Amino acid sequence: MPYILVQVTDEGVTREQKARIIAGATDLMVEVLGKDPESTFVLIDEVKTDNWGHGGEMVTLRRQRERRGG
Amino acid sequence: MPYILVQVTDEGVTREQKARIIAGATDLMVEVLGKDPESTFVLIDEVKTDNWGHGGEMVTLRRQRERRGG
Amino acid sequence: MPYILVQVTDEGVTREQKARIIAGATDLMVEVLGKDPESTFVLIDEVKTDNWGHGGEMVTLRRQRERRGG
Amino acid sequence: MPYILVQVTDEGVTREQKARIIAGATDLMVEVLGKDPESTFVLIDEVKTDNWGHGGEMVTLRRQRERRGG
Amino acid sequence: MPYILVQVTDEGVTREQKARIIAGATDLMVEVLGKDPESTFVLIDEVKTDNWGHGGEMVTLRRQRERRGG
Amino acid sequence: MPYILVQVTDEGVTREQKARIIAGATDLMVEVLGKDPESTFVLIDEVKTDNWGHGGEMVTLRRQRERRGG
Repeated sequence: MPYILVQVTDEGVTREQKARIIAGATDLMVEVLGKDPESTFVLIDEVKTDNWGHGGEMVTLRRQRERRGG
Repeated sequence: MPYILVQVTDEGVTREQKARIIAGATDLMVEVLGKDPESTFVLIDEVKTDNWGHGGEMVTLRRQRERRGG
Repeated sequence: MPYILVQVTDEGVTREQKARIIAGATDLMVEVLGKDPESTFVLIDEVKTDNWGHGGEMVTLRRQRERRGG
Repeated sequence: MPYILVQVTDEGVTREQKARIIAGATDLMVEVLGKDPESTFVLIDEVKTDNWGHGGEMVTLRRQRERRGG
Repeated sequence: MPYILVQVTDEGVTREQKARIIAGATDLMVEVLGKDPESTFVLIDEVKTDNWGHGGEMVTLRRQRERRGG
Repeated sequence: MPYILVQVTDEGVTREQKARIIAGATDLMVEVLGKDPESTFVLIDEVKTDNWGHGGEMVTLRRQRERRGG
């Protein structure tokens, strides 16, 4: 009965990508641990880049710098 | 000082239902563990059905199949 | 398909208390939201009092003070 | 490689406040544990006051009572 | 910069299984979302069967019933 | 009423370090958001290095490689 939480930045994850994440994470539980898909939950939490800090700063700012070539 | 996180699919949970979940979960901590309600937090996280996977697929798709009688 | 996480301090929660928390939280989902118990997970996370801070200090220290009548 | 989740009520947290939370929590990991900021994540989750229970009731209602002087 | 939390019951997950879960979940982020493995965390939380409720009862009891053929 | 979860690898965090993390994270909520320490929880979750994946592999293995100078 696994519970899997996937937190990613909210940068345009498509429905098709969500479906692949759900299927892939569930398959992993089935293949590696022999779990039943019917008792496997996968939750995707899309977090705004203003609300995700990495390296001590907002991901929003990191992205801007990356785009400027920094 | 309990912390309770309730994750449910975002399918029209009403304010009155939220109030009952908060009261019920808090009462449970008081009755079973003798906790102080003032140091009990209950958080309700409503998750979009596209972002919740069950049985390897989006709950959105499961719901559609259920409605079709599948 | 609710997921409920209950975090409490690790201060001797008995098996019988865990069973009551699991049953009570599941019932709450059934009664308030009409959820299926078979797709309801309840997880209990017992946290050491050294690892739980409240009011800016370890719960371990708060408990000591409470016992001394402070 | 710390992961820090900060859950607060959604009551107008500004961008500048988010930046300070991210920087402050990251600094704490660097100073106390000698962690690398580049492998430190800080996530801020803003929770609606209807979805946060404290003392057995919605924070929304507590706030109303506080404003009325109760 | 994904964060993935995998909660499973503590029923003898081997080191090799953990390694496969970590690799598989990371690969999923790389393949589906183009994420950098170096900013992908995968945490495995093994939960005692007494502390995991399913269907309103402890998984420990469900397992006993399953073994008895119920 | 903030809730802060700090997940770090279980590599000998001392009691004094835990106290500093609890105090520092609480102060941050007081200073940046004007929160009441009495309604601020800080939880520290120490995760075994076998259960933490980074870059697609167990932190245990990364540490071994780092020590060998890789």
